[in-house]
Amino acid sequence: MSKPSIGFVGLGAMGFGMATHLVKQGYPVHGFDVFPASIERFKAAGGIPAYSLRESAEGKNYYIVMVASSPQAQAVLFAEDGIVQHLPQNAVLMLCSTVSSMYAQSVVAELQNRGRGDILFVDSPVSGGALRAANGTLSIMAGASDEALNAARDILQEMSDESKLYLVPGGVGAGSNMKMVHQVLAAIHILGASEAMGFAAQLGLDAPVMAQKIQASDAWTWMHENRFPRMVEEDWNSGASAVTIILKDAGIITTTARQQRFPTPLCSTAEQIYLSALLHGWGPKDDSAMVRQYYARPLSEASVSPAADAEAATELVLDLMRGVNLVAAAEAVAFARHLKVDLSMFHTLVSQAAGGSKIFIEQGLEMIEGRIGDKAPAGSESVDQVAAKLETVVQKARDLHCPLHLGNAALNVLFMTQRHGSGAQSSTSVIRVYGQ
Amino acid sequence: MSKPSIGFVGLGAMGFGMATHLVKQGYPVHGFDVFPASIERFKAAGGIPAYSLRESAEGKNYYIVMVASSPQAQAVLFAEDGIVQHLPQNAVLMLCSTVSSMYAQSVVAELQNRGRGDILFVDSPVSGGALRAANGTLSIMAGASDEALNAARDILQEMSDESKLYLVPGGVGAGSNMKMVHQVLAAIHILGASEAMGFAAQLGLDAPVMAQKIQASDAWTWMHENRFPRMVEEDWNSGASAVTIILKDAGIITTTARQQRFPTPLCSTAEQIYLSALLHGWGPKDDSAMVRQYYARPLSEASVSPAADAEAATELVLDLMRGVNLVAAAEAVAFARHLKVDLSMFHTLVSQAAGGSKIFIEQGLEMIEGRIGDKAPAGSESVDQVAAKLETVVQKARDLHCPLHLGNAALNVLFMTQRHGSGAQSSTSVIRVYGQ
Repeated sequence: MSKPSIGFVGLGAMGFGMATHLVKQGYPVHGFDVFPASIERFKAAGGIPAYSLRESAEGKNYYIVMVASSPQAQAVLFAEDGIVQHLPQNAVLMLCSTVSSMYAQSVVAELQNRGRGDILFVDSPVSGGALRAANGTLSIMAGASDEALNAARDILQEMSDESKLYLVPGGVGAGSNMKMVHQVLAAIHILGASEAMGFAAQLGLDAPVMAQKIQASDAWTWMHENRFPRMVEEDWNSGASAVTIILKDAGIITTTARQQRFPTPLCSTAEQIYLSALLHGWGPKDDSAMVRQYYARPLSEASVSPAADAEAATELVLDLMRGVNLVAAAEAVAFARHLKVDLSMFHTLVSQAAGGSKIFIEQGLEMIEGRIGDKAPAGSESVDQVAAKLETVVQKARDLHCPLHLGNAALNVLFMTQRHGSGAQSSTSVIRVYGQ
Repeated sequence: MSKPSIGFVGLGAMGFGMATHLVKQGYPVHGFDVFPASIERFKAAGGIPAYSLRESAEGKNYYIVMVASSPQAQAVLFAEDGIVQHLPQNAVLMLCSTVSSMYAQSVVAELQNRGRGDILFVDSPVSGGALRAANGTLSIMAGASDEALNAARDILQEMSDESKLYLVPGGVGAGSNMKMVHQVLAAIHILGASEAMGFAAQLGLDAPVMAQKIQASDAWTWMHENRFPRMVEEDWNSGASAVTIILKDAGIITTTARQQRFPTPLCSTAEQIYLSALLHGWGPKDDSAMVRQYYARPLSEASVSPAADAEAATELVLDLMRGVNLVAAAEAVAFARHLKVDLSMFHTLVSQAAGGSKIFIEQGLEMIEGRIGDKAPAGSESVDQVAAKLETVVQKARDLHCPLHLGNAALNVLFMTQRHGSGAQSSTSVIRVYGQ
């Protein structure tokens, strides 16, 4: 059986990988991009070049939008001579860009207004980075009508790992909300990776050794593991994941949080530090370059301290990440719960995706299941204990004149939790400070 | 009656003013500094040069220490051939540097240990800037034994404004604690002045016009009024008040807060942004240079927008300062209360000193007096209303890609207050989120 033609717009780092993967799977993919060079590159990789939105959309029963933002999506979808104008009846339109759920829902309304309610629209953001895009092993979070989900399922499955296509209940918007709460963790952990390694450098620790210890410990985050090689190589112009990209996602989170009047102190802190970096010209660089906001020289130039100090110093870095990852998990779970996101699916998804951390996998699950007990059970830490360790970390960073934006913000959240009477309770009780 | 000789160490921006003012009042002041040029400058201004600590201390019944930090104080007081070794019996020793109360108390203990319990030690930090130091109109917060306070009173009064010598109950440490909680406001308002003016520039507002409107409104802070001229002139090498100075004070606050496990989200945010500036080489600059962390060019280069927009934009800047100043007042009052600082004196002091703001003078007093009511009284704003305005501000800054560190931190504190059920209450109820 021959595979259906697919229209595709947005051949950037992610989109190029997704589109060429579909080509490899035997789909005729008609790809368009605003940069002619990207179209030629796609052609060279076996894709069918489309030299206009019209050409990419005409006669295509399946269409994938992978542009960088909702303003771009709005333009390619609804501009004169845009995609919607040229899609055939009952075409399946998959929006894979990261947008707010509000924007995704507005697309449905605008399709109706334009008399194109026939189009089967799927809100299907992705996660996993350029490599997984190219391998067809992305995580995809799809929300839509049952009819649209059924129609889009096979193609979404081609682009995602066998176990990582999430059909999120709740219709259009639910996919984007799922992606958004995932990005709460991503936005914090990306900065967290830089904060940990910058602090380690200020402590005089050897970066590769420290990174290995983080990866082997309960301080592990997917982002740290993924970003560290580029961070230490200063491979900051690869186009893999620019500061502007995570900044955009953080903006979707904090804008939605403001509409919901929901506190996101850690994610907001991260966003502000990304914004500061943007102001000083770091926007187009890989987000692992954020390490320069903590340590002014290359990580490889950190002087390596003697082994005796190194052990205690290593523990400080691990404690930093543990503390930050714990509060990050609380912030993400509390926000997800507030938005009525399917928490069990959220946990499964994050645990296997870019927002994952050891702490989220374990303590995040306890938070989701409401196992936050009145007293810290034997063998588990209390809020007081986590705060005490993070206090030592923050003081040490202060003594070294090392900024520690997330560490400080997390510690203040823990202090607030203590002030509201939950200090002796298990560390997962920090979620209580985010309200009901 | 001839005036007594005074020993003096620390002829920096503040110390030079204080010492020469005492000279003008007829005191023989023997001044020492580690920089020989400062001694010569003091000599040229009519002071008596001392070329060693010994020379400055021998035979002096009154001694004033105005070095920059507690490590420096420790060195000049207790080093071999240091001050304490050479002071006569029952000398009055005034430590005017800003230090932690813990450090001030440690001096008393060390005097005892060294058999110099006879020395009348006064913990007497000052506030007001170099100009007031030179005019003898500083605010001084003195804590000591009654005997020491009585002995030091006349000289402290010479250096302070008639109404601004505060004899703080509680002995040694109480002066430093009073100064510290004052500095909570100073540390936030210094960054707040830059944040407001940087945001105004991003909005295309004319800086002098905006500054005037702030000064004429309930968004006024002493720091904004004081810093704005240097900010707009980019007069950043005057030595008036370097980033490192407020960073040191912020460090005293957050270190003490950590020991007390007390949350200081706004002050910590400010400290982290000062630390970031330090990392990038801004430490020695005047703290008004922090505006560059919000707007990358001189304020004078901001393009002036048409008058229609300007009115709404101006209101956004005022709302930013109102929101931040409100949470700053809550943070300072809550922390002062926690430390059992005399709140009535605290209010009087701040209202006339560098930490002052219109919001603190009014809403701060309501917080101190416990007038935080169950419902916002007619004519006053609720937490919900302040949060709603700040939300608009923060969103606008985000749209402009303008960092807004304090605005975001303050908004998250307000959201936490709402999540804990105080949204409909008067805005001063934000203090509740800081706990009992």
